[in-house]
Amino acid sequence: MPRYRIDIEYDGTNYAGWQRQAGQPSVQEAIERAILALSGETVTLKGAGRTDAGVHALGQVGHFDLARNFPERNIRDGLNAHLLAAGESVSILSAAVVDETFDARFSARARHYLYRIGNRRSPFALDRNRVWHVWKPLDVEAMQEAAHRLIGLHDFTTFRSSQCQAKSPVKTLDRLDVTRVGDEVQIRASARSFLHNQVRSLVGTLKKVGEGSWTPDDVQAALEARDRSRCGPMAPAHGLYLVGVDY
Amino acid sequence: MPRYRIDIEYDGTNYAGWQRQAGQPSVQEAIERAILALSGETVTLKGAGRTDAGVHALGQVGHFDLARNFPERNIRDGLNAHLLAAGESVSILSAAVVDETFDARFSARARHYLYRIGNRRSPFALDRNRVWHVWKPLDVEAMQEAAHRLIGLHDFTTFRSSQCQAKSPVKTLDRLDVTRVGDEVQIRASARSFLHNQVRSLVGTLKKVGEGSWTPDDVQAALEARDRSRCGPMAPAHGLYLVGVDY
Repeated sequence: MPRYRIDIEYDGTNYAGWQRQAGQPSVQEAIERAILALSGETVTLKGAGRTDAGVHALGQVGHFDLARNFPERNIRDGLNAHLLAAGESVSILSAAVVDETFDARFSARARHYLYRIGNRRSPFALDRNRVWHVWKPLDVEAMQEAAHRLIGLHDFTTFRSSQCQAKSPVKTLDRLDVTRVGDEVQIRASARSFLHNQVRSLVGTLKKVGEGSWTPDDVQAALEARDRSRCGPMAPAHGLYLVGVDY
Repeated sequence: MPRYRIDIEYDGTNYAGWQRQAGQPSVQEAIERAILALSGETVTLKGAGRTDAGVHALGQVGHFDLARNFPERNIRDGLNAHLLAAGESVSILSAAVVDETFDARFSARARHYLYRIGNRRSPFALDRNRVWHVWKPLDVEAMQEAAHRLIGLHDFTTFRSSQCQAKSPVKTLDRLDVTRVGDEVQIRASARSFLHNQVRSLVGTLKKVGEGSWTPDDVQAALEARDRSRCGPMAPAHGLYLVGVDY
């Protein structure tokens, strides 16, 4: 009974998120249907991160088991053929047989996210569902200084969705970088795991710093308050990308 | 009677092209409607290049005349507000008052195009309508060698749509560069003006070289034949971008 790891790219715009939900399109269900069409087997696909509606992935990772053996490239190419035929905005980047102890979610050592803020006066026609359009010029240095205060082991209650199901709000944030790339401000965040809505909450707060309405000290005070109401307005889903997962 | 130049970005996916056509959505009409909504004036917007259905622009240029004066930033921001409200995938990057002798089409000294080939095995989920997916690995050096044979003053009949209305098929191609950028093969083409479908015809032919079915000598022979039937299959519209126009 081989276990397969697949690496997945998707455009989250038209999905209610990664996770299967009755009556709504999800990335998980789209791929499970393609697996059924390819193999004749009904499987449950587990993913490394349950991305929300509108969130994109450049390197989501999933795993599933099949009763029969398929060559790895047949999994990749076959799933892609069925996904394309079904009109899904999902692509299988690679497929590999892995040890049965591999678990896309629980074996993950680090998750990497990218948040793209489109920072110019005019709207983005080509990247409309790809970047958060913020027209006010952002002070990237101030954002980076505030970001530094958030790195490390903290109680991230302030930056956690009220619906978060994690047992503890204490997490280690390994990386939170803010850089300008042309018209964009890009924020890269890495951690072993994140709380629900944590990246979007952090980005929404850093944006307040970038536009000058909060200082880095305000961000630190909000973190230390451990109070959800102290979080800046959450950044929208469509600027967020799950870039990759380390095992 | 002030004349305005506007620089325009658009996602060509849902348009029948730049040019106004009865019963079909066009970029020209979308902007003309926004100008009417903003100014109360019915104008004709002239563009530097009449891009085809599905072709994108990062820097199309247009001009129009108004009876009344508007501050430049009111033109830019006002048009963008009306375009967003109408659900158009068009953004005005800048607006400037120009001399009445300025003509977006006839004053242009050079037009710059980018063609993006997505060159990897798996489909592109996020860039589905942004790149031409070619899964066979392309030999960029061979493509570049063939491209060099096409630069300069030539009769480009081979690379010209049968519907092209230009008086002469003789054009000077100033630039045709092929480079690999990660998963992409990018082709940049510059000329004072292009024949109809010329860039897509050149790219389709270079792709034949990249996959090894044509040699650079074959391309040169096709050019010298001045015969449309010798052109490689035309590259699709959705990988093409009008990047900018020089005046």
